[in-house]
Amino acid sequence: MKLVSYLKDGHDQLALLIDGLLFDTEALHPDLPGNMGLFLQYWDDAYPTALMGEKMVREGRISRDRGKPFDEAYLLAPVPFPASCRDGYAFRQHVASARRNRGVDMIPEFDQFPIFYFTNHTSIQGPGDVVCMPDHFEQLDYELEAAIVICKAGRNIKAAEADEYIGGLMIMNDMSARKLQMEEMALSLGPAKGKDFATVIGPCLVTLDELEAFEIPAKPNHTGKNWNLRMTCTVNGQLLSDGNLGDMDWTFAEIIERCSYGVTLHPGDVIGSGTVGTGCLLELNGTGKRNNPDFVPQWLKDGDVVEMEIEGLGKLSNSIVAEDNPHSLLALKKI
Amino acid sequence: MKLVSYLKDGHDQLALLIDGLLFDTEALHPDLPGNMGLFLQYWDDAYPTALMGEKMVREGRISRDRGKPFDEAYLLAPVPFPASCRDGYAFRQHVASARRNRGVDMIPEFDQFPIFYFTNHTSIQGPGDVVCMPDHFEQLDYELEAAIVICKAGRNIKAAEADEYIGGLMIMNDMSARKLQMEEMALSLGPAKGKDFATVIGPCLVTLDELEAFEIPAKPNHTGKNWNLRMTCTVNGQLLSDGNLGDMDWTFAEIIERCSYGVTLHPGDVIGSGTVGTGCLLELNGTGKRNNPDFVPQWLKDGDVVEMEIEGLGKLSNSIVAEDNPHSLLALKKI
Repeated sequence: MKLVSYLKDGHDQLALLIDGLLFDTEALHPDLPGNMGLFLQYWDDAYPTALMGEKMVREGRISRDRGKPFDEAYLLAPVPFPASCRDGYAFRQHVASARRNRGVDMIPEFDQFPIFYFTNHTSIQGPGDVVCMPDHFEQLDYELEAAIVICKAGRNIKAAEADEYIGGLMIMNDMSARKLQMEEMALSLGPAKGKDFATVIGPCLVTLDELEAFEIPAKPNHTGKNWNLRMTCTVNGQLLSDGNLGDMDWTFAEIIERCSYGVTLHPGDVIGSGTVGTGCLLELNGTGKRNNPDFVPQWLKDGDVVEMEIEGLGKLSNSIVAEDNPHSLLALKKI
Repeated sequence: MKLVSYLKDGHDQLALLIDGLLFDTEALHPDLPGNMGLFLQYWDDAYPTALMGEKMVREGRISRDRGKPFDEAYLLAPVPFPASCRDGYAFRQHVASARRNRGVDMIPEFDQFPIFYFTNHTSIQGPGDVVCMPDHFEQLDYELEAAIVICKAGRNIKAAEADEYIGGLMIMNDMSARKLQMEEMALSLGPAKGKDFATVIGPCLVTLDELEAFEIPAKPNHTGKNWNLRMTCTVNGQLLSDGNLGDMDWTFAEIIERCSYGVTLHPGDVIGSGTVGTGCLLELNGTGKRNNPDFVPQWLKDGDVVEMEIEGLGKLSNSIVAEDNPHSLLALKKI
């Protein structure tokens, strides 16, 4: 099942995406919640009812005339108002490459426990324009990730049971302003300001039933589901990042176990995987420079089109847009 | 004006604290919102109306019989459901002491821009028990801070105007599990898991009109209000931390400027000051050890009572309680 949130009469309407058509949830069953927030709150009832609705469309018992073209909708983030947003650090290849590029050894702690940090859940957005301020353009980057949303409350969840708390998978682009990020991380807090202006998810939330054919075992000594799904990112049509979700070393189940230790997770909490190997310009620029001293680093600029695809999860397309405002924190820097 | 949230018939009731009595907002004026979330949303109307209500109590035009004893209320966090929670790093003395204790020089970036990070706004709590899991007791610490709450939405707010966005001041205890924190910070993300189980605010939100007598200028080359307010923390009655809010080098106004760069701040966003000098056991233990090699480090343990006071803001009292659950992330650590 593919769940989409789109703008309708000024509010966020939840719909099922079936063969290129959007069916508002209420058109499938009058009891279904009309937005993702409520759908996640009432997941145990809403999810099987929505599955049944999808079946009825496929069997012709609900007319396709009730659907609207997906291409004409103003898409929002599938989870337009997340309860929170955490981002993980699950791909060893990304961490190892980044460290190799900086000339430092792989850090043994990576293999010992799965880390995460909190980012700005009020800056989550969907497909479309990503509006950036001048400082964001100082080494502006994307990060190719997958994300999950939590569909039932839980605390001290064990990894072996944690997949039950996953509502589905989405593409995530964790936009990053590297100059702001590098500056603040010198002070050992963060990242925060380097990441808080835009975290993009979309175009739809794909529930796990639809991904069963792609399931693969977790890596040795790891617990939880994993999925063999190719992940790519192009900028202005040029393929730059090419990885696979199946390369996650720490599973979402293990990340949930850590996130929920002594803390309640709530429906609507979004958790990102961390960047896949090759999944950002910072890593690609570093690798390019290491292999060729004449390599010219590339960063995102005004007008660039960033398109991410994950097999089975669709395509997430965003345009970078410069805000008409000269305000700069970097220019305010003291001393 | 002192605003308090307390538990009433299973919901969060907003009240004014006047001379030891709690007056429900609706008892002061029928138009006043009954909870802090709505009060902050409608601040421009609600704040002057509540001020008028307080005046009417003081003038005897509203009977004191409508008040209930503050001491008998089950207090919640004054902002029980924050829209988000950021924590700053505003006190130079704390940073300098911590670095001296680690044998490293003061970092010049501290004086160049005010940093912050996001922490778990769904784990905000008020006075009372702080329930901790086994791993939290591995070097369990408090952090003595002040916090503000945002009372109107804004984006790209300049420091010179930022004090207008402050609803008031509260005491904050940013509980910290140092073992979890140190482990994750070796990987350069965070702190997150070391801080996400409990951030305590309370007992009340004190609006800035009530603090005018304590206002002092910002430090040279800094912008915004500051307040000369002594801050202390005792554990089991023993005074351990003793600082002053006036020692903030970066003002809340400057922190708001950075937080709101390219990002909308919302009513209900909570922002902490960062730890005051001497304001946590990590710093005190380090200083003790530096001055005396035989110093025995102290951490919080089950049953400890942590009491924080900030002049004008009241007293925030919490008891440390061990949860009856052996689950440990540290024990799950791989390799």
